[in-house]
Amino acid sequence: MSDKIVCFGEILLRLSPPNHLKIFKSKTFEAHYGGAEANVGASLSLMGCDVKVVTALPQNELGAAAESEMLSYGMKANSIKQGERIGIYYFEQGASERPGRVIYDRNSSSFSMLKKGMIDWKTIFKDAKWFHWSGITPALSQDLADVCEEALIIASEMGLIISADLNFRPTLWNYGKKANEVMPNLIQYCDVLLGGIDDSENCLGIKTTEKESFEDVYTKWQKQHPKLKTIVSTLRYDANASSNTIGAVLWSNSKLYKSTEYKISHIIDRIGAGDAFMAGLIYGLINWSEDPKKTVEYALAASCLKHSIAGDINLASADDIKALMNGSTGGRVIR
Amino acid sequence: MSDKIVCFGEILLRLSPPNHLKIFKSKTFEAHYGGAEANVGASLSLMGCDVKVVTALPQNELGAAAESEMLSYGMKANSIKQGERIGIYYFEQGASERPGRVIYDRNSSSFSMLKKGMIDWKTIFKDAKWFHWSGITPALSQDLADVCEEALIIASEMGLIISADLNFRPTLWNYGKKANEVMPNLIQYCDVLLGGIDDSENCLGIKTTEKESFEDVYTKWQKQHPKLKTIVSTLRYDANASSNTIGAVLWSNSKLYKSTEYKISHIIDRIGAGDAFMAGLIYGLINWSEDPKKTVEYALAASCLKHSIAGDINLASADDIKALMNGSTGGRVIR
Amino acid sequence: MSDKIVCFGEILLRLSPPNHLKIFKSKTFEAHYGGAEANVGASLSLMGCDVKVVTALPQNELGAAAESEMLSYGMKANSIKQGERIGIYYFEQGASERPGRVIYDRNSSSFSMLKKGMIDWKTIFKDAKWFHWSGITPALSQDLADVCEEALIIASEMGLIISADLNFRPTLWNYGKKANEVMPNLIQYCDVLLGGIDDSENCLGIKTTEKESFEDVYTKWQKQHPKLKTIVSTLRYDANASSNTIGAVLWSNSKLYKSTEYKISHIIDRIGAGDAFMAGLIYGLINWSEDPKKTVEYALAASCLKHSIAGDINLASADDIKALMNGSTGGRVIR
Amino acid sequence: MSDKIVCFGEILLRLSPPNHLKIFKSKTFEAHYGGAEANVGASLSLMGCDVKVVTALPQNELGAAAESEMLSYGMKANSIKQGERIGIYYFEQGASERPGRVIYDRNSSSFSMLKKGMIDWKTIFKDAKWFHWSGITPALSQDLADVCEEALIIASEMGLIISADLNFRPTLWNYGKKANEVMPNLIQYCDVLLGGIDDSENCLGIKTTEKESFEDVYTKWQKQHPKLKTIVSTLRYDANASSNTIGAVLWSNSKLYKSTEYKISHIIDRIGAGDAFMAGLIYGLINWSEDPKKTVEYALAASCLKHSIAGDINLASADDIKALMNGSTGGRVIR
Amino acid sequence: MSDKIVCFGEILLRLSPPNHLKIFKSKTFEAHYGGAEANVGASLSLMGCDVKVVTALPQNELGAAAESEMLSYGMKANSIKQGERIGIYYFEQGASERPGRVIYDRNSSSFSMLKKGMIDWKTIFKDAKWFHWSGITPALSQDLADVCEEALIIASEMGLIISADLNFRPTLWNYGKKANEVMPNLIQYCDVLLGGIDDSENCLGIKTTEKESFEDVYTKWQKQHPKLKTIVSTLRYDANASSNTIGAVLWSNSKLYKSTEYKISHIIDRIGAGDAFMAGLIYGLINWSEDPKKTVEYALAASCLKHSIAGDINLASADDIKALMNGSTGGRVIR
Amino acid sequence: MSDKIVCFGEILLRLSPPNHLKIFKSKTFEAHYGGAEANVGASLSLMGCDVKVVTALPQNELGAAAESEMLSYGMKANSIKQGERIGIYYFEQGASERPGRVIYDRNSSSFSMLKKGMIDWKTIFKDAKWFHWSGITPALSQDLADVCEEALIIASEMGLIISADLNFRPTLWNYGKKANEVMPNLIQYCDVLLGGIDDSENCLGIKTTEKESFEDVYTKWQKQHPKLKTIVSTLRYDANASSNTIGAVLWSNSKLYKSTEYKISHIIDRIGAGDAFMAGLIYGLINWSEDPKKTVEYALAASCLKHSIAGDINLASADDIKALMNGSTGGRVIR
Repeated sequence: MSDKIVCFGEILLRLSPPNHLKIFKSKTFEAHYGGAEANVGASLSLMGCDVKVVTALPQNELGAAAESEMLSYGMKANSIKQGERIGIYYFEQGASERPGRVIYDRNSSSFSMLKKGMIDWKTIFKDAKWFHWSGITPALSQDLADVCEEALIIASEMGLIISADLNFRPTLWNYGKKANEVMPNLIQYCDVLLGGIDDSENCLGIKTTEKESFEDVYTKWQKQHPKLKTIVSTLRYDANASSNTIGAVLWSNSKLYKSTEYKISHIIDRIGAGDAFMAGLIYGLINWSEDPKKTVEYALAASCLKHSIAGDINLASADDIKALMNGSTGGRVIR
Repeated sequence: MSDKIVCFGEILLRLSPPNHLKIFKSKTFEAHYGGAEANVGASLSLMGCDVKVVTALPQNELGAAAESEMLSYGMKANSIKQGERIGIYYFEQGASERPGRVIYDRNSSSFSMLKKGMIDWKTIFKDAKWFHWSGITPALSQDLADVCEEALIIASEMGLIISADLNFRPTLWNYGKKANEVMPNLIQYCDVLLGGIDDSENCLGIKTTEKESFEDVYTKWQKQHPKLKTIVSTLRYDANASSNTIGAVLWSNSKLYKSTEYKISHIIDRIGAGDAFMAGLIYGLINWSEDPKKTVEYALAASCLKHSIAGDINLASADDIKALMNGSTGGRVIR
Repeated sequence: MSDKIVCFGEILLRLSPPNHLKIFKSKTFEAHYGGAEANVGASLSLMGCDVKVVTALPQNELGAAAESEMLSYGMKANSIKQGERIGIYYFEQGASERPGRVIYDRNSSSFSMLKKGMIDWKTIFKDAKWFHWSGITPALSQDLADVCEEALIIASEMGLIISADLNFRPTLWNYGKKANEVMPNLIQYCDVLLGGIDDSENCLGIKTTEKESFEDVYTKWQKQHPKLKTIVSTLRYDANASSNTIGAVLWSNSKLYKSTEYKISHIIDRIGAGDAFMAGLIYGLINWSEDPKKTVEYALAASCLKHSIAGDINLASADDIKALMNGSTGGRVIR
Repeated sequence: MSDKIVCFGEILLRLSPPNHLKIFKSKTFEAHYGGAEANVGASLSLMGCDVKVVTALPQNELGAAAESEMLSYGMKANSIKQGERIGIYYFEQGASERPGRVIYDRNSSSFSMLKKGMIDWKTIFKDAKWFHWSGITPALSQDLADVCEEALIIASEMGLIISADLNFRPTLWNYGKKANEVMPNLIQYCDVLLGGIDDSENCLGIKTTEKESFEDVYTKWQKQHPKLKTIVSTLRYDANASSNTIGAVLWSNSKLYKSTEYKISHIIDRIGAGDAFMAGLIYGLINWSEDPKKTVEYALAASCLKHSIAGDINLASADDIKALMNGSTGGRVIR
Repeated sequence: MSDKIVCFGEILLRLSPPNHLKIFKSKTFEAHYGGAEANVGASLSLMGCDVKVVTALPQNELGAAAESEMLSYGMKANSIKQGERIGIYYFEQGASERPGRVIYDRNSSSFSMLKKGMIDWKTIFKDAKWFHWSGITPALSQDLADVCEEALIIASEMGLIISADLNFRPTLWNYGKKANEVMPNLIQYCDVLLGGIDDSENCLGIKTTEKESFEDVYTKWQKQHPKLKTIVSTLRYDANASSNTIGAVLWSNSKLYKSTEYKISHIIDRIGAGDAFMAGLIYGLINWSEDPKKTVEYALAASCLKHSIAGDINLASADDIKALMNGSTGGRVIR
Repeated sequence: MSDKIVCFGEILLRLSPPNHLKIFKSKTFEAHYGGAEANVGASLSLMGCDVKVVTALPQNELGAAAESEMLSYGMKANSIKQGERIGIYYFEQGASERPGRVIYDRNSSSFSMLKKGMIDWKTIFKDAKWFHWSGITPALSQDLADVCEEALIIASEMGLIISADLNFRPTLWNYGKKANEVMPNLIQYCDVLLGGIDDSENCLGIKTTEKESFEDVYTKWQKQHPKLKTIVSTLRYDANASSNTIGAVLWSNSKLYKSTEYKISHIIDRIGAGDAFMAGLIYGLINWSEDPKKTVEYALAASCLKHSIAGDINLASADDIKALMNGSTGGRVIR
């Protein structure tokens, strides 16, 4: 597949105690580099797509390590070198009734200092077909919200398909604006959106009642943002930190497609499960645009496999995902 | 909370193969320092209580390491330095149908050489409100049974609340006396007791029939030991080495309070789950003396979380425990 | 038990990423040495039997390490030193819906170069009572199929009981013959066979219909190979890579014995589960020849415990296995 | 020794790749908690002194871990809980010709937000005899320089002996003032100073010529800061990242005492070697005030041993240090 | 630097026991991917050059991992996907008097199956300025010797500068030809050659006497192969497995330039030290063609630093190397 | 070599912090199984000798692990199963000026409970040629001294060659007798002795003066114990915990043979260096009885290599040792 996909977002150093240890007593941290949008890109690259990630990183060994990691997935990387620190998040894996825990330490990172005019979007989008971003970026600063808008305007003008993951993290919206004051202006450019009913008021400013179904809510969203063609959400039930039942819905052309469900009995690492879903969705929309049901099944199977893979990034190949989609439950060793 | 709690017991070096390996082929051991009573103290300290652990340790690097570990939980440590060895137990984690296995190697330890008159209980109990011990100590030697009695008499005289965990380990009672020849004399000083129906004959010398309920049995116990105000027991069902359903009962004022149950689907480390329960119980009795139901729920939630934490000691904070008590099932990452 | 058991097969270096990592991103591999037939031998040796493994290994540090590992289980080793490489297989542990994956790299190994006449079977079988081999060996080359036949003829002449595990691995049969062109000639010497209904056509060339039961199929096998006295199969249901329900059947004297079932909720390592079953079967047939039900229960309990043990080899003792057989579900720590 | 020593400074999370790996390719970091002044305190505590460390930490798991680590050395900790992040430094161990490398990421840490009036110095200094600080703290902000002055004034008034390590790190002085505009005002309160000839202009604003000896330079320092009684410096020769020759000088009462030298052939971890020296110096000045030669020998032996110990903190006991001082070269195993 | 450099050679999986363990008792192997020519390319890429590595790899997870690793250094990779196995070498680190040990297991690898016509050299060399290969490739098979010749003819025609490392490994030349029957035909295309006096007869078929100096020998080489402009050799003295003194000579325009020497006191990993030298040499020849002395110093400093870095590949940047060249001995931590 | 060698002694579990950590802060221990006499046997077995180790171990997983380890070296093991604990020693690796440290915890071990009559020496010594023991065993108890005597009398009667390592550990002689009250009675049976001048008074009760040379002292020893044919000692100079110069002397037939010396620049693990020497000595005496100089060189080279190998046991092969003896200094990688 030769269509170029551009992902824009921050790449963080993730520090996690090994073996389900708590931060309090851990003497080592495992290091992973990732970020919501880069995770989507890396997964698409491993599925065979031509992907470029756009970000900013410090000019030091940590920045070099993060970029090297991105390259290792076969992506290209366009990293503005500025600032002095890579953003960090500490992730303490949960287990059974003990929830996982993320502590962000990403203020003043190189990425957070991006401003309008720093990135040459026209060159970056040349020959590209798809642009992906997420709601984490405009949460970080007014400047980054402006950079998002700048990118979205140019991407729209150049005819790219645009997807976004709402990724609503209330603790990140700290610069004085609420998500629903900023996001609607950005969502108007999007063709594809990942968001659940809970996000409706928080991110789009559209109130919902308990009675409203996904169809009802997504219809309202589409009315407010008529460019939206595909809206999706993942679902979790019966969840503790080690096992989950997951499903998904995809709304397209006023129709809702419900996926099958997976009972994930043993979670290795749930970080990036939404990003894996997003990557599967983009892959499906590019390859099977006529078959929304197949697309949502592929996206969910991708997300399901991510739960079995350490780190932020889904290492499953398109073949692995299709095998699960087609009924391989993992019960046999492949020889 | 400024009430001082004193815990008395042995601190052992625990040696466990990593990653569920068996001792037979393991080339490394993970080292933890803990002991039934110190585990209770450490957990209470992490919940914010003012705790002192009283023990004996050798004057060498192992003794120093054990004491350092105790200090790291915010406890004070009163360690008599004598003897030449720290007691050891090897713990092989089980998995699924393979049971966990403990091999004790604690004979001739520094703690096992304690004798009456060595510990200045009056100074130790000054300003203290609570004294906690367990049935492991009098199991080790006649001398240690005598030290327990010595401590209990002084603690009683000084008006401390006294709690005990029966902790019946048949393989430890090797000096010629049976538990039920020694324990009743010590239990008479206790206000709070952790023990199940199985312990009735073994530890208190009170026979039970299969028909007798917790109410029946605990009523008999209270009759024999009228100082007892609160008696508790944990319950396990459907257990294999990796998953358990747990519950608890608390008997107080002739009433039995039954906890909710937790299905723990993935056990990280079950050692110290009873000690975590005991710590939760003491915390509850101090804070919500009027609300036995809340207390047993808190104690069980503490024990439940311990199953998700490596090592002997429950690292969960009071807030973590309350969150579980209030319905957080661990299914969401806290960000 | 002083009866000598001889196992013949390749010993491979297994390279596995730790902690469920994928090969793609793993920077370390755990090294285990094992092989289908040696695994059977090692397990029997740990149960107290007198076992010798016959194999070929290179005269280098890897060959020495493999032999040392075999000795460490108390087996004797008869290793022809030839060739330049030890066979390898990479094993990526699966998790939940992600299947485990084996990549073989065993061509041109020392073992694969064995030819008729190289092994002094008469000396090896002296005083031996039992000979065990598997369908992996004749899959590797015509020469190895010939060596198998050579061994089987001599073993038969010398009166040994002969067992085989069909171990059908389609990707290994690469030298121009199909399994069912080679295996029937070898199976005719066997008293004991491990194989499922799926193997009937593939290995014995006997077609089956969906309606045929184990009794039906095994009756046909026995008709074709009248020396067969005991035929067994393991069963798996509801399986993903982390949990399985397992059972087994044993057919003997025209009667089928069905085992109880185990729901293995947390798999540590499933490699060698069939070999553990085979070892349990041989142990049972030697010790309780009159009690096929007990034998199949013991074999299945052995296999169940193997799932909880890292590496290729079942480290459970006969006592451990009997405890599970007798109802210990692993829910209590043995102290 | 019951004299209380107070140390004031930041406690950082140190992240180091294991096994001499470079950050660029390391997938794990070892975590240590330490800081120049806390390292001095921890070492003194392990030598048997009564030490309290004063600092600020965030109210999260990282802050709790840092405090727990401090307690584990037997120190008391007085941590103001504020802000959101613990300061970090990445430390890449060097080897042979490859230098070690520190990347600071400590801006906006909890400690860096301290301001005058936040710390109750009078209570902290009650019953204390010694106050130790270092030049790192006033390098971080004007506010912290003011806090230092505040502490120094009160400590002086309350009659504490005051020691400082100049610890000149040019990359940290970023708030618009040079070290020699700030430090002299603070040094005037000090009795004991650790600093080399290179620091003279940088920190005290006193120019030196190449011809001037330690005696010459220190005499000038003492003239400018008449309260100074003891001035010391460590010396390094023939150094690469794995081996060093170290020595030291101590100037007291207008006399210079030169230590013996150690050829450290294998460096395990050189971070904190200066802090270990400082701790040894304070210990010596308290215990052997009449014997400056013994004091500088003890301080250097302490520093020498620190090079053999992983992490920031010198774990050597006073006995270990005295043994080296008395000629034990490490060549024999102590049994 | 925008000049494109092409490196051609095999990429192997290296399996090394950690912590200086011997293979015999090691239960884990560290995995590195590298190869003589790819190591040169990776190092040049980290210095900022535009590099492509040409190789062949299997279409499986090991091949993907090897390619991912190459991409992580910023190189492009042109991997023919064929065959079934990645070549392996086991490397046991030596220590002090115990030598390091390499066991090759690379027969039948994907790379070893390359044949003339499989690689599109014209496209690969488009816009390229430099081609690097080594004597390991023609050692593996006649086919690979032919592929080398094919590449060399096209590279020559297209005007690329050509460099080679003789890399004489006697144990690899197994297909019936001696090195000096094959290599001269290939060396004739080279501008730059890395080889020592010992290689003269073995690789070029030119006998030498003990009296002959580097000048004498290299003059003969240049006479036989008049295209040669630069010939270099590294030197080792006083070597054990943990420490070495290294130097180098560079012969250019009939003049011999001798480098300074480094006493490497603590070797972390010596594999790839020659490749690091080669990369430094190419970098120097491109950047300072007029300054052979500077070039040889840079190349040796690069090689020196490689000894301090784990794995096959020199992770030192051009700045790191220049710092050593300019006298930084590693004795100070860079902050 | 088919001559059977019998070694008698305790096998201990050694617990060592990894990576030069101190026990005080180590959270893991590496586990090795070994003991002075078993180390000698294992090394001889790896050199190709037929060795049996005689010991006592508990009937638990630790005892099984220790025995398995012995078997893995190709030795036979004759372990009396009794008692409840395996002896332990903690070993903290030193570094540079920090000495290594052994903490023994071996009282009440299975081995320490051996008594006369428990071991069937006649059967064990059948067909054996050599018996090796060391001074550690009679240090542990009067009973063990008696068992040694029992074994020595029978070995003498059966014509075995007898060797002993004095292995004087003052801290082990705790049962009321001094070494020189017990050892002379046992040494009288020995043909070969390893001991230095310092041991003369301590172990043999023979006073020496500073002026006396090895010849002088050994002549006295031989006079007191006329059966002694070969007496040896190792020598250490310029030692710190990381580097040593070692040498050796061998006295035979009134002649002293001095070995060459090795400067071991990087020690990996010095435990067992004397045992490695002893094994080399026995190997030499068996193979080159006519060449004492060759024997002492081989023994020293063996000991030298042991310093580069982790654990108690010398894994070097006879070929490795001969290579060093013949001048290979470890400076070149063997390919």
